[in-house]
Amino acid sequence: MACLDLEGVLIPEVWIAVAEATGIEQLRRTTRDEPDYDALMRSRLELLHRHGLTLTEIQRVIGALEPMPGASAMVGWLRERYQVVILSDTFYEFGMPFMAKLGYPTLLCHRLVVRDDRIVDYALRMPDQKRESVRRFHQLRYQVIATGDSYNDTAMLGEADAGILFRPPAKVIAEFPQFPVALDYDGLREQFERASERLDGVKDGVS
Amino acid sequence: MACLDLEGVLIPEVWIAVAEATGIEQLRRTTRDEPDYDALMRSRLELLHRHGLTLTEIQRVIGALEPMPGASAMVGWLRERYQVVILSDTFYEFGMPFMAKLGYPTLLCHRLVVRDDRIVDYALRMPDQKRESVRRFHQLRYQVIATGDSYNDTAMLGEADAGILFRPPAKVIAEFPQFPVALDYDGLREQFERASERLDGVKDGVS
Repeated sequence: MACLDLEGVLIPEVWIAVAEATGIEQLRRTTRDEPDYDALMRSRLELLHRHGLTLTEIQRVIGALEPMPGASAMVGWLRERYQVVILSDTFYEFGMPFMAKLGYPTLLCHRLVVRDDRIVDYALRMPDQKRESVRRFHQLRYQVIATGDSYNDTAMLGEADAGILFRPPAKVIAEFPQFPVALDYDGLREQFERASERLDGVKDGVS
Repeated sequence: MACLDLEGVLIPEVWIAVAEATGIEQLRRTTRDEPDYDALMRSRLELLHRHGLTLTEIQRVIGALEPMPGASAMVGWLRERYQVVILSDTFYEFGMPFMAKLGYPTLLCHRLVVRDDRIVDYALRMPDQKRESVRRFHQLRYQVIATGDSYNDTAMLGEADAGILFRPPAKVIAEFPQFPVALDYDGLREQFERASERLDGVKDGVS
């Protein structure tokens, strides 16, 4: 099974795009900058509230975004060889437009709490859901190759049978030297093939 | 989340198609006729062995099969509304050609043990995997609507938050009156919508 993070691996960072479209510079911070996810989200919601931004306005920005160049082909390549599940700390309200553009791979993520078109809170489906999902797939007797780009992926990468960092920031590489690094999709394919050779039978969705 | 059986729900019964293509009438038996899956599989492998059929020959038959009319549209409809996972007791060697034709939804199933192009055994990934998968999705805090057509789906349907029988044989309807029955994809869509109304927040992949 192939478990992929979404933002930074297949699509651009949504909050950075919202920051650029709205001019709210502080929205540029991501899990790359702030490892404490709740602190990061609280500050994002506070910024949206202060600037009076609605969900509709944010979704208009998101609707104009495309997956990263080559992302659809990458997902297609993986789907022919593995069972693919996207594990993301994004929200369905933000993620589903991208799923449509990527051919609807299965996405496990969270959701927003919306009242009168205002994002008033967010609901984590469960804490540490990326790692928990890999655990459940292990319990279902699957071997897992996982890839992600940031701090909030490293528990998932560690839980997986093979973890691959995709275009991570330098400090993540330095902190987690145990994970091989891919700098583009060709490199990511190569790392998946290497991991598959090492893990008997993970390929063809068979493990 | 939407969990779907494969054979009898989205694709024809593979073994019946193989029976028709090879003229081996006894291969027509399915889980609809024999609830004991291992007994059924042992008899199938014995029949293949006796008639000298190779995996390549069986895959040639399977390659010519198409999903049931309307199945791709059904999967597309579900994917826009739920996270879709196919839970099947088929084997990747048989199922993946159909996944290509259905746009590669995630498929959890088993695999065959093949030596020199002969199917010598089968490897259940785990016992009762359909029900176990629904359990794991529950542990990941998803609500599950499941659909299947036969005896080997009823444990999954019972484990799910809502279970729907799709074109089941009369004796399954009689034995499991607790599950609503859909006779075609329009009926199945309607049952999914009814179940979603009852289950708060299962739609849009959010639960």
